[in-house]
Amino acid sequence: MKVAGKPMRTIWLEADGSAVGIIDQTRLPHALVTARLETLDDVAQAIRTMQVRGAPLIGAAAAYGVALAMRADARDAALEAACRTLLATRPTAVNLRWALEEMRRLLAPLPPPERAAAAFARAAAICDEDVAINRGIADAGLPLIEAAWEKKGRRGRVEVLTHCNAGWLATVDWGTALAPIYRAHERGIPLHVWVDETRPRNQGASLTAWELGQHGVAHTVIVDNAGGHLMQHGRVDLCITGTDRTAASGDVANKIGTYLKALAAKDNGVPFYVALPSPTIDWSIGDGIAEIPIEERDPAEVTAIAGVTDAGAVATVRLTPAESPAANFAFDVTPARLVSGLITERGVCAASREGLLSLFPEMKPRATAGADAG
Amino acid sequence: MKVAGKPMRTIWLEADGSAVGIIDQTRLPHALVTARLETLDDVAQAIRTMQVRGAPLIGAAAAYGVALAMRADARDAALEAACRTLLATRPTAVNLRWALEEMRRLLAPLPPPERAAAAFARAAAICDEDVAINRGIADAGLPLIEAAWEKKGRRGRVEVLTHCNAGWLATVDWGTALAPIYRAHERGIPLHVWVDETRPRNQGASLTAWELGQHGVAHTVIVDNAGGHLMQHGRVDLCITGTDRTAASGDVANKIGTYLKALAAKDNGVPFYVALPSPTIDWSIGDGIAEIPIEERDPAEVTAIAGVTDAGAVATVRLTPAESPAANFAFDVTPARLVSGLITERGVCAASREGLLSLFPEMKPRATAGADAG
Repeated sequence: MKVAGKPMRTIWLEADGSAVGIIDQTRLPHALVTARLETLDDVAQAIRTMQVRGAPLIGAAAAYGVALAMRADARDAALEAACRTLLATRPTAVNLRWALEEMRRLLAPLPPPERAAAAFARAAAICDEDVAINRGIADAGLPLIEAAWEKKGRRGRVEVLTHCNAGWLATVDWGTALAPIYRAHERGIPLHVWVDETRPRNQGASLTAWELGQHGVAHTVIVDNAGGHLMQHGRVDLCITGTDRTAASGDVANKIGTYLKALAAKDNGVPFYVALPSPTIDWSIGDGIAEIPIEERDPAEVTAIAGVTDAGAVATVRLTPAESPAANFAFDVTPARLVSGLITERGVCAASREGLLSLFPEMKPRATAGADAG
Repeated sequence: MKVAGKPMRTIWLEADGSAVGIIDQTRLPHALVTARLETLDDVAQAIRTMQVRGAPLIGAAAAYGVALAMRADARDAALEAACRTLLATRPTAVNLRWALEEMRRLLAPLPPPERAAAAFARAAAICDEDVAINRGIADAGLPLIEAAWEKKGRRGRVEVLTHCNAGWLATVDWGTALAPIYRAHERGIPLHVWVDETRPRNQGASLTAWELGQHGVAHTVIVDNAGGHLMQHGRVDLCITGTDRTAASGDVANKIGTYLKALAAKDNGVPFYVALPSPTIDWSIGDGIAEIPIEERDPAEVTAIAGVTDAGAVATVRLTPAESPAANFAFDVTPARLVSGLITERGVCAASREGLLSLFPEMKPRATAGADAG
């Protein structure tokens, strides 16, 4: 998508081929800073400190991390060490594990002198595959926005509410939840996005607002508390969020607070869609609420927040009394009954086992095994 | 309630009788600072800058403001000017208007030399009446917490979720939503309060957490996004919030985001109670969602936030991209169908016209007129 009018991705091979470029997302939205990653350790550090974040982007970065490692030392021990180092950066990230297994599977059988070139090529392909999946989501979701536009008699603009950041910054390009929005914008459909700030890490207020603004999509930042009121008053035509993990039943785990927006959408007859690349479907899970473990993160993310001062410096301030404890649940699970549809790279389906299997019939045996196990 | 072990109110007449003392709530939770208000303008400024806030406390402060004005100049013109100045500080505050009308009604017929003494006496009585109402709410709500405790077989602790600050800091003492919690704490029922931070002004994370902590009530601060997840997992026994305005139908206007918590409570079978002093009932309103206007406040409350730095200084930081607009809806309306009961100083009733009239039968003619008008 565009930044200050010029197309950009979140990760790229530098022109001289000797390093990987990234946008340092910890500096957004207050500064656009790119970083040059030259070694495995640079990449591991970038993932660990969340300079790169978002499941698909972490996977792509990890693939490049293996490639950089192979250029330095392509022996078996180095390959194993690289995968181990990278996996430890974000142990629960599904795409990270997948990308590392993919690289190991490809590289291990090759003679060491061929590994670096093959690794760089595969990393580039992983990036392009991510973009292709997200374009698929964009195309699949476009008719939903077109339908909302028609329903309004092509008057005003389509009002979309989103939570967290499932935009191009979380992927290599296009994003998941925002992909249909970018496609509709490209098609000239007038759009406006209500951006939930998404406490505690404020990915909406910082990342989603920034990327929509840079690409020229009209948007307004609201606190997470506001969406219900807007839906009560007919000011949201549809909701689209991403998901970190989708159960085979259609239950979706996503950033904390997604469930509350889905309840409000249901209560007000507003369609609530979840966009996902199919690798995030966990075919082994039947009951999302009972079975998907919810990570508890550092309470300091709740009690303190970073922003920029009038003087332009980034500062962290504490919001709560020093003696008050805080708890920080990272995700919640939205039951399938509240989800109007799942937007995948193969099309839109009902949020149910039947719906998912209609798009991914090849998963039938696994999904059925999962149901038995559940 | 207690602060560092000693009982305190939010407003008091100083021992020398020459000034009114308040807690400067803009300094909480990072510092407990009291302020001495000696003139009408001091009081007007304190209300305007939200050093005192919360509908009942604003009413009490305004009454003292009139008293301070009468001491300086008790003529008719001064009385009118004082009321006008104070009303302009927070034009939409119902209690403010009520307190000023009450003072004018009392003072206007009196000879000017008698006005100051009568005004100080009435202001003190308004404070005591507020405390009495809130004690009534405490007593009325106690059985709900006792019932939750019995339902758990008197094991663990009663888990209460609250939103915003409807504690003693919003009133003269005791509070509304927190009054039953303080009463249950006094009775020795083990309690724990989940405190919604309540963006954008963070009254939960700052004021509610501070007052519960000072009084010794166990609590944990959570982001507004977290309550649904906690209720899904059986970690909330009941919700209690306050309200700024209750429709005769039982619909309740309260801090933005209350509606989302009520939806989650309903979806998970968690009782959702709203505590209110009867003066906040608006008997003329039938449909809260259609008829209660929702104030839009300064977007800067969403885009920037104040906190304390590691060095102990209070600083304000911007959270959003400089170019991104924000919107700031202050309240939302929770429909009566989501409210398990209303806790008033006369007892608990159903959130409905019939329920309210069962406790306030004297309002029957007015409420019926309201229904016709609606």
